[in-house]
Amino acid sequence: MIIVFKPHPSDADIAQVAAKVVEFGYEPRVIRGVELTVIAAVGDEIAHKSLETLVSLPVVERVIPIQKKFKLASREFHLANTIQQIGPEKLGGGHFLTIAGPCSIESRQQLRTAVQDCLKAGIRVIRGGAFKPRTSPYDYQGMGQAGLDLLAEVKAEFGVGIVTEVLSSNHIAQVAAVADVLQIGARNCQNYSLLEQVAGAGRAVLLKRGMATRIDEWLLAAEYLIVHGCHNVILCERGIRTFETATRFTLDVSAVAIAKRETHLPVIVDPSHPAGKASLVLPLARAAIAVGADGLIVEAHPNPSEACSDAAQQIPSAEMPRFMAALQPLIDLCAPANANAAEGAAR
Amino acid sequence: MIIVFKPHPSDADIAQVAAKVVEFGYEPRVIRGVELTVIAAVGDEIAHKSLETLVSLPVVERVIPIQKKFKLASREFHLANTIQQIGPEKLGGGHFLTIAGPCSIESRQQLRTAVQDCLKAGIRVIRGGAFKPRTSPYDYQGMGQAGLDLLAEVKAEFGVGIVTEVLSSNHIAQVAAVADVLQIGARNCQNYSLLEQVAGAGRAVLLKRGMATRIDEWLLAAEYLIVHGCHNVILCERGIRTFETATRFTLDVSAVAIAKRETHLPVIVDPSHPAGKASLVLPLARAAIAVGADGLIVEAHPNPSEACSDAAQQIPSAEMPRFMAALQPLIDLCAPANANAAEGAAR
Amino acid sequence: MIIVFKPHPSDADIAQVAAKVVEFGYEPRVIRGVELTVIAAVGDEIAHKSLETLVSLPVVERVIPIQKKFKLASREFHLANTIQQIGPEKLGGGHFLTIAGPCSIESRQQLRTAVQDCLKAGIRVIRGGAFKPRTSPYDYQGMGQAGLDLLAEVKAEFGVGIVTEVLSSNHIAQVAAVADVLQIGARNCQNYSLLEQVAGAGRAVLLKRGMATRIDEWLLAAEYLIVHGCHNVILCERGIRTFETATRFTLDVSAVAIAKRETHLPVIVDPSHPAGKASLVLPLARAAIAVGADGLIVEAHPNPSEACSDAAQQIPSAEMPRFMAALQPLIDLCAPANANAAEGAAR
Amino acid sequence: MIIVFKPHPSDADIAQVAAKVVEFGYEPRVIRGVELTVIAAVGDEIAHKSLETLVSLPVVERVIPIQKKFKLASREFHLANTIQQIGPEKLGGGHFLTIAGPCSIESRQQLRTAVQDCLKAGIRVIRGGAFKPRTSPYDYQGMGQAGLDLLAEVKAEFGVGIVTEVLSSNHIAQVAAVADVLQIGARNCQNYSLLEQVAGAGRAVLLKRGMATRIDEWLLAAEYLIVHGCHNVILCERGIRTFETATRFTLDVSAVAIAKRETHLPVIVDPSHPAGKASLVLPLARAAIAVGADGLIVEAHPNPSEACSDAAQQIPSAEMPRFMAALQPLIDLCAPANANAAEGAAR
Repeated sequence: MIIVFKPHPSDADIAQVAAKVVEFGYEPRVIRGVELTVIAAVGDEIAHKSLETLVSLPVVERVIPIQKKFKLASREFHLANTIQQIGPEKLGGGHFLTIAGPCSIESRQQLRTAVQDCLKAGIRVIRGGAFKPRTSPYDYQGMGQAGLDLLAEVKAEFGVGIVTEVLSSNHIAQVAAVADVLQIGARNCQNYSLLEQVAGAGRAVLLKRGMATRIDEWLLAAEYLIVHGCHNVILCERGIRTFETATRFTLDVSAVAIAKRETHLPVIVDPSHPAGKASLVLPLARAAIAVGADGLIVEAHPNPSEACSDAAQQIPSAEMPRFMAALQPLIDLCAPANANAAEGAAR
Repeated sequence: MIIVFKPHPSDADIAQVAAKVVEFGYEPRVIRGVELTVIAAVGDEIAHKSLETLVSLPVVERVIPIQKKFKLASREFHLANTIQQIGPEKLGGGHFLTIAGPCSIESRQQLRTAVQDCLKAGIRVIRGGAFKPRTSPYDYQGMGQAGLDLLAEVKAEFGVGIVTEVLSSNHIAQVAAVADVLQIGARNCQNYSLLEQVAGAGRAVLLKRGMATRIDEWLLAAEYLIVHGCHNVILCERGIRTFETATRFTLDVSAVAIAKRETHLPVIVDPSHPAGKASLVLPLARAAIAVGADGLIVEAHPNPSEACSDAAQQIPSAEMPRFMAALQPLIDLCAPANANAAEGAAR
Repeated sequence: MIIVFKPHPSDADIAQVAAKVVEFGYEPRVIRGVELTVIAAVGDEIAHKSLETLVSLPVVERVIPIQKKFKLASREFHLANTIQQIGPEKLGGGHFLTIAGPCSIESRQQLRTAVQDCLKAGIRVIRGGAFKPRTSPYDYQGMGQAGLDLLAEVKAEFGVGIVTEVLSSNHIAQVAAVADVLQIGARNCQNYSLLEQVAGAGRAVLLKRGMATRIDEWLLAAEYLIVHGCHNVILCERGIRTFETATRFTLDVSAVAIAKRETHLPVIVDPSHPAGKASLVLPLARAAIAVGADGLIVEAHPNPSEACSDAAQQIPSAEMPRFMAALQPLIDLCAPANANAAEGAAR
Repeated sequence: MIIVFKPHPSDADIAQVAAKVVEFGYEPRVIRGVELTVIAAVGDEIAHKSLETLVSLPVVERVIPIQKKFKLASREFHLANTIQQIGPEKLGGGHFLTIAGPCSIESRQQLRTAVQDCLKAGIRVIRGGAFKPRTSPYDYQGMGQAGLDLLAEVKAEFGVGIVTEVLSSNHIAQVAAVADVLQIGARNCQNYSLLEQVAGAGRAVLLKRGMATRIDEWLLAAEYLIVHGCHNVILCERGIRTFETATRFTLDVSAVAIAKRETHLPVIVDPSHPAGKASLVLPLARAAIAVGADGLIVEAHPNPSEACSDAAQQIPSAEMPRFMAALQPLIDLCAPANANAAEGAAR
């Protein structure tokens, strides 16, 4: 870490701060500059207590950490792209995976139709919400266990993989009984208590980036999952909150490129939530593929105008074969090259 | 709701949408304009299913809700300012309440010193974290139950009120056994599952605004608490995430003024988190008082440079008497007038 | 426009607002709902004065415009993609154009090397700043007229097209004497005085989106240019300012898709400024191509570590052939299809 | 500056970068840490070329400037609060100044009424726009020279000071002939060409913060003005663009506190633009006073519902006496203390 003093510290000030640095387990190197004086504190910033507390001393202007805070998620810890088995499909390292399905599970008929439409499009991993986080307490909150039962049915009948969201530690066991992948939604990305408990469920975890979560904080949330025992973390960029109102969220494609370089984890993109309307989902999916995503998670519903949630952004599931056909040449061109590029850039 | 058509809809398009409007329980009024055609859908937007799903129809450009979505939290439901009893103090309706204490509870000695310093400053409601949400899994995570035990000790000995955070539904009962107020942190503001469960604990709930939560979403989170049985909700503005990096968060004083008008709930401000450094806490507290806040929640630590979390923004607790003395004339000038103004503006 | 009343307006309130609506030239249609009353004001919102002033009446809650404010830039005004001739190249309607060159012109040698490297990469339109907007008054401010003279030299010798920035109305004539395209930088996107004057210079204008400019405001800035006589406007997305600090700006690929649908103008992307570092430029360029951009504008410098500005994000110009080779298959796959898709979506 | 290497640099890498550091005029100090190696470059960062270009070297991870970039605006250059004479009033150093008047000048009658109402409220410095920056080319653009003539009339008759906006270097002389203070609007805060020219007009300059301008960039824009000869710069916070849509902009009160500490310049607040509606102007003005602002600039119009621009946020000018009466006790309490506090904090 670098400790920057306010202008003109006395020798006693410098000595006092240097002593604190030693006390915290680092080795201080004092550098007296023309305009400013700094102490470079030598030591592993993860293993020792942070020196950032020293900002509270009146003579200290600021403390600058220089080491990244995540380890197990990093390319330095594990260079090669992680490849995961998700139901009948592979994800990562050149294996591009598309997940699709309705925002909420609403009925047996609705889910079955969506699944059958997805299968026609070549999609064999299904998403569908049984527990729904809704901004208003008066909105539809999901079918709960009955929705999970319907997911279990389609899994058994069609052999699809299942991705569904966990909202509460109370539901982890019942969701894990059905799902191949437990989804942590954007609003829970920094719900560390839930992350710790989900990590121990023995399932892959899809970690959506929070709408105001910086990339380094998102990767630290992934680090929580790994530290607590989850070895199959999937990162998912789904748009951040900005001043722009023409879209629901601003898809941050740079975050995909950065997460691919900094970590060995697969990174997928949800183009539906940032789009906010169905007609923008295809171009955003194209951008995601080209920037280097390992997969997509797309909302598709048999009849969007009657959906119980997020109607505007759901693609009619009957159109999924055409949607995938429009993307396939791009996937074929980009996926293998991107996998190599990310590993290469990290070397 | 207002349904706006794309340019030049056919009569059949209009009839189809009007029929859907009827089907959802609203009464459609078609208005054919010079450039655009709209349908005004007459009906209670909370009682009926949202028409926003109609955006998925190809002829519809957009759907504009015009009714506010919260009821029980609103001034229309309950005009007068809600006044709450928090330990030995009142909050709201002209009763200004300052809560202070360390970010994390670290030891008996640390907590007792902080409490005694606060008491000297006239502060009789104490905050202190036993369970801490930390961005990195390698950072200090709090004392847990041992921290709660220390809070119980100071409560018994000094008669102070206690505010402490709940991170997980697993801890609600044990936290509620000690705390007068259960705090929902910014990262859990839209963790609806936790909100529902905390609401039933029989304690007041302090609801921090999320760092990317819009005011209407924050008030809907309060509505969740009320719907699920919590009648003593305290709103807390603590800064939002913006592009500015000179502060940790951007304190949104407008949100205080708006929440005071739109709801009957007390609204307090946390000036410590947006400041990010101790020297900015006082001016932000001043702005909060003047804009109409009903109270403050301030981080104060006996020895900030050795704090386990948020060191930079904690005020040395020994300085709290001077801090409160600097604020008292402003509180005396503003608090009664602001209470009346908020009620008056809502009339 | 839709005028929403506060709850429970009297008949006299409604009549008073309706009279104002008539006075402003619209026809009022009163709709009394269950919870709320609204007036739909029928009339062309561009031709008449805005009713938004009525928000200042105490009985009015809000006024909602429903018509888009730009006309000449819109697909409704001109359905087909605009195709422009930029020096020796075409832009738009399936013609993908890459522009490259140094951030600032620093010397004859530097510019010539950059141009020759670009030509080897198949790039025949060159960017280069003679007048530079710099955040600090102590930073390099550009060569001014001497830089323009160097641009004129390379234009004459190599037959390249020239894109360069105009910072002030004082320089328009001298810049227009050399440039094929006058660039309006992000900080001047809403400098309407400059827009009006640049529009009359008889050159194409490249309009960068401001870092806090919403898409509708950006398209209205383009409308300013068209209204004041510029028929060759090129839109350029270059990233917006958000809370994320891992990149310099957040590239908003959705803005490209939306601008392509809403307008007939070519839309290009600057991947260099949002990236902030050279290694991210390639993935962002890939995302831009896939989402539907008509071109790229890329910073390339013979020796970035000695550049006078924006060193971190400039690609070594000697690498431009490899850079373009990496993009060409994607351009070949995407450009024609995207052009058709944008026109089709607008139909 | 601190140069951070990527992990495991070779001795040759370090020597190469150190040589560059010497070449740029700094003295390099190499610090080999446990996990990372850095070079601290000793030297005045303003006097020398920035080392940030070294980020373009493949072995460099990042370069961290540690010195502030503004000098003439800083408290270190000039410790005491700058006090300015604005028409008949003083501003700064405990002299609180309120400026008010209509958004746009629309007619002699409108301006005279507004001025007379302001005088009744004790306000003797008037704002009013003759040239208006409007988002749409179809909106009212101001009266131009005729508006300036009306300002000259009221100045002569009533002895008021005049603040009005300059949009273009073409208008500087004509605006400076009438105005005591030339206003640079938010959209031109980083229009450096205009800043340079306005600085030489021999008038005070009111510099509004841009809606996406960081505090350090805003202070550097002030530095441009000072470097180019303007010795009376007034900083004006007017809200930044964020995700929140309940207000037009988010008033950043922290920016006031920071600008007061870091610079010796007076800092005022425009509460009208962030509020976006008249009823929020008073509470935001209160927050501004309490946080330490030296003054206010408020929009007031004789008849807001007929205003040509910004109707919703203008206070009826007849209410200005009541508005000021509501603020005066707060001004009396805060202004002198805040002036001392800012100087004291900087000592």
